[in-house]
Amino acid sequence: MNNPFFKNYGPIKALEVYKILNLKPNKVISSQNITDIKDLAHSKKSEITFFHSNKYKDLANKTKASFCITNSNLKKELPRSTFALEVDNVLLSTSIITSMFYPDSINDYFDNTVVNISETKFKNSVNFGQNVLIGENVSIGSNCKIGHNTIVEKNVSIGNNCFIGSNSIIRNTIVANQVKILDNCVIGKHGFGFFPLNKNNLRYPHIGLVIIEDNCEIGCGATIDRGSMSNTLIGKNTFLDNQIHIAHNVKIGSNSIIAGQVGIAGSSVIGNNVKIGGQVGISGHIKIGNNVEIGGGSGVIKNVPDNTKVMGYPAKNLRTFLKQNK
Amino acid sequence: MNNPFFKNYGPIKALEVYKILNLKPNKVISSQNITDIKDLAHSKKSEITFFHSNKYKDLANKTKASFCITNSNLKKELPRSTFALEVDNVLLSTSIITSMFYPDSINDYFDNTVVNISETKFKNSVNFGQNVLIGENVSIGSNCKIGHNTIVEKNVSIGNNCFIGSNSIIRNTIVANQVKILDNCVIGKHGFGFFPLNKNNLRYPHIGLVIIEDNCEIGCGATIDRGSMSNTLIGKNTFLDNQIHIAHNVKIGSNSIIAGQVGIAGSSVIGNNVKIGGQVGISGHIKIGNNVEIGGGSGVIKNVPDNTKVMGYPAKNLRTFLKQNK
Amino acid sequence: MNNPFFKNYGPIKALEVYKILNLKPNKVISSQNITDIKDLAHSKKSEITFFHSNKYKDLANKTKASFCITNSNLKKELPRSTFALEVDNVLLSTSIITSMFYPDSINDYFDNTVVNISETKFKNSVNFGQNVLIGENVSIGSNCKIGHNTIVEKNVSIGNNCFIGSNSIIRNTIVANQVKILDNCVIGKHGFGFFPLNKNNLRYPHIGLVIIEDNCEIGCGATIDRGSMSNTLIGKNTFLDNQIHIAHNVKIGSNSIIAGQVGIAGSSVIGNNVKIGGQVGISGHIKIGNNVEIGGGSGVIKNVPDNTKVMGYPAKNLRTFLKQNK
Repeated sequence: MNNPFFKNYGPIKALEVYKILNLKPNKVISSQNITDIKDLAHSKKSEITFFHSNKYKDLANKTKASFCITNSNLKKELPRSTFALEVDNVLLSTSIITSMFYPDSINDYFDNTVVNISETKFKNSVNFGQNVLIGENVSIGSNCKIGHNTIVEKNVSIGNNCFIGSNSIIRNTIVANQVKILDNCVIGKHGFGFFPLNKNNLRYPHIGLVIIEDNCEIGCGATIDRGSMSNTLIGKNTFLDNQIHIAHNVKIGSNSIIAGQVGIAGSSVIGNNVKIGGQVGISGHIKIGNNVEIGGGSGVIKNVPDNTKVMGYPAKNLRTFLKQNK
Repeated sequence: MNNPFFKNYGPIKALEVYKILNLKPNKVISSQNITDIKDLAHSKKSEITFFHSNKYKDLANKTKASFCITNSNLKKELPRSTFALEVDNVLLSTSIITSMFYPDSINDYFDNTVVNISETKFKNSVNFGQNVLIGENVSIGSNCKIGHNTIVEKNVSIGNNCFIGSNSIIRNTIVANQVKILDNCVIGKHGFGFFPLNKNNLRYPHIGLVIIEDNCEIGCGATIDRGSMSNTLIGKNTFLDNQIHIAHNVKIGSNSIIAGQVGIAGSSVIGNNVKIGGQVGISGHIKIGNNVEIGGGSGVIKNVPDNTKVMGYPAKNLRTFLKQNK
Repeated sequence: MNNPFFKNYGPIKALEVYKILNLKPNKVISSQNITDIKDLAHSKKSEITFFHSNKYKDLANKTKASFCITNSNLKKELPRSTFALEVDNVLLSTSIITSMFYPDSINDYFDNTVVNISETKFKNSVNFGQNVLIGENVSIGSNCKIGHNTIVEKNVSIGNNCFIGSNSIIRNTIVANQVKILDNCVIGKHGFGFFPLNKNNLRYPHIGLVIIEDNCEIGCGATIDRGSMSNTLIGKNTFLDNQIHIAHNVKIGSNSIIAGQVGIAGSSVIGNNVKIGGQVGISGHIKIGNNVEIGGGSGVIKNVPDNTKVMGYPAKNLRTFLKQNK
C-alpha cells in the first residue's frame, strides 16, 4: 500500500542517495530511479528498504526491494536482485533516506491549510461547535459531531456516527465508525523518536498513521502518537480513560479497557480483552497477550502471556504479588 | 432533592419499564406512572430505586420507593409498599432505566447552546478573555474572571470571586466562592463507567455533579469527572497541583494538598488535612482517613486510617517502608 | 539582575514593612526606603533579603543587603551593615514582603493585554495559525511559527527558528533558538507553592521565570512551572516527551532525554546527558548527576551520583534492582 497521507517526493536518483550516505557511487546503479522506501516485507522492485538486525534474516532473504541499506555483516542475507548499500549505522542512514522521500513527516508544524468548518463542504453534513478548523484532505462521514475549538488537521479520515470533543487536535489519523474522542486530546502527532546527537538531536521521520477502529472511546487529555514506519492502532471497542499516553507504533487489540493515566511506550503490542488498571506503565517493545489483567500502578517490563493476571513493579503474577505484600 | 442539571424525562408508565426489562407485565401495576429514579435512601412514593447487594439491606428495609429493581434473593428485604422488579443483572437494568429518565446524561456531546460571553448577561459582570463561550443554565457570581478560549457549558454554577483560566472546559459543576481553576482543565465530564460488552460497550448514565467548595485551587490539565448516581466533591481549601485525575464519585475533604500527576479512582473517599505526594495512585472504593500523609509515588490499594503516614506500592506504614528500603 | 518580567512596586518605606510584620518600628530605620527584595547572594545596599537556615550562613556573613528578615538564632551571622528584622516564621514573612514588591506574581489571572497576532508587529514576521493571541512585552525572533489558538501572554521572549504548537499557553518565559514547544502545553505558570493555612492557604509569589535553551523540544501536554525566587531551566538540546510535569525551580542540564509522563518535583537539579524513562517521579530538592540513566517507572527519593544507572521505587542501583526482581 502506498502511504495515504504523506507525500512521496520520489523517485530519487540512486546517485543522490549515494552522495547523502557518503558512499562511493556504482556507475551502473547510479542512474537508476528509486521510487519509494518501505520495510523488508512490503518493498518492491525499484524501491529501497533497510535491514539492520539478524532477527529479520528471513524477511531479508525474500525481499523484493532493488536496494537495501544494511551493513557489511548482514548484506550476505540479501537476494541477488537486491543491491546492498553498506553503512555503519543502518537506522540513522535509513532515517536520512526516508527524510528525502517524506520530508513532510519529520516536523509537526501547525497545519496552515485549515479553514473554519463553516467554509467547507462539511458545513451541512457535520454538527459542529464554534471555531472548528478543518485541513486539506479530510473526510468525515455521516452523523458526526465536532466540539468547539477542535482542529482536524490535514490527512484525517473520520467514519460515520463519530463524536470529537472540544479543544482536541487530530492529524494523520484514520477514525472508523461510532468512535468517541473526548476533550483536549492530541491524536496523530509524531512519536518521541530521534537520534540523540550532541548539541542537536536528529528527528527521524514518522510516516505511519494512527488508526482507531469502530466503537472506541478515547478519554480527555489523551496523546496518541502516530507510527514511524508502521501504524499505531487502537482495536475495536477498546475504551481509554483520561490522561493516557500511547506512544508510536503501539498496537492495542479489541475489547480492551485502559484506566486513567496509563502510559504505553513505543512499539508494544497489547492483545484483546485486556484490562489495564490506572497509572500502569508498559515498557517499549513488549508483548501483552489476550485476556490479560494488569493491576493498577504496575510497571510491566517483560512480555505477559495470554490469560494471566499480573501486578507490581516490576509486574509479576498477581497471587505472588499479593502474597509478598500481605 | 431533584437533579438540578439533568432533565428528567419522566413520568414513565410502569408498562414501558416492564417492556424494556423483558418482564411479564403486572396488570395492576402497568398503568401506574413512575416519576423518577433515585437511590434507596432518597427515593420516594411513585419513584423507582435499585437494590443490588446485601450490604444495603438496612436501607432497603426502609425505602419509600414504590418500585425497586432487584433480584430474587434480595427482594424479600423490601417493604410491602415497594413493588420488586426481578432481574438477573440489577446494575445493568438500573442503568437502562436511568437512561430512560435521564437520556442527556449518557453522552457528553459538545454543548451547542453556547454563545460568546459578550452576548450574555455576564458581559458586564464578569472579567473575561477572548473567545469565552457560555452555555444555558449557567450562573456566575460577582467579581469573577474567565480566561481565553474557556468553555463554560450548560449546567454550571459559579460563586463569587472565582478565577477560571484559559482553554478549560466546565460542565455539570457547582463551583463555590474564591475557587481557582487553572488552564487546560476538563471538569464535569462523565466518568469512565460502562458495562463491558463484546463489540459495543454500554455506557451508563452519569447524573451526578462535580462540586468544588470554597477556596479550592485546581491545577492545570486536571480532569475531574462527575458522579454517576452521587456527586464528585472537592472540599473547602483543598489544593490540587497540575495533571491530576479525579474519577467519578470521589469525595475529597477539606484542607487537603494533592501534588502533581496524582490519580484517584472511582468512589474513593479522602479525609480532611490529607497530604498526597506526586504521582500517587489510589484505587477505587478506598477510604483514606483524616490527617493522612501519603508519600510520593505510592500506590494505595486498601483503606488508610486517620493520622497515618504511608508510602510504597502497595502503600504501607512509612517507617516500615523506609526501614525496608534503607 | 533586576527582574525582567515582574514589575517592582518598590521602593517601600521600612516603616510599612515593620507594620505588616507586626514589628516594633525602629525610629532611625523607619524612614528609609527599601528598593527591592532578593536572595542573600544577590541583594545590595538598600534592598531587603531573608535568611532562614544555618545552611546559608556563609552567604549571610557576606550579604550586601541593608535589611534581612531572619530569626533570633540566626541574626548574629549577619554583618553589621545589615539590619535584622526578627520574625517567627522567616519564609512566611518573606512571602508577605515579596508580595508587597511584586503583587503581580502571586496570581496567574489570564492576561487581558492580549490581542490577535494579526494586530501586532509580528503579523509579517511570524508564520501563525488562527486565533493566536499575543500579550504585552513579548518579543519573537525571525522564522518562527505559532499554531492555532495558542496564547503567548505578556512577558515572553522567543528566539529565532522556534515552533510553538496549537492550544498552548506561554507566560513569563524565555525561549532561546530552534526550540519546539508542541500542542496543549502550559509553560510559565506559578508553581504549587503556598503556606497551608486552615480555611485559606496563602500563596507565595513566584517571581522566577522559565528558561528553555537552544534546540529543546517540549512534548504535548507539558506543564512547566516558573520558579519562585530562582528560575526553572531546561538546558540545551534536552527533549521532553508528552504529558510531563516540571515543577518550580527545577534545573535540567543539556542533552537530556525525558520520556512520557515523568514528573519532577520542586527545586530538583538534573545533570547533563541524563536519560529518564517513562512515568519516573523525582522528589523535590534532589540532585541527579551527569550521565545518569533512570529506568522507567522509578521513584527517585535521594540524590543520584554521576554516571550511575538506577531503577526501582525507591530507585536503587540498576543491577541490584534487576537481581532482586529476577
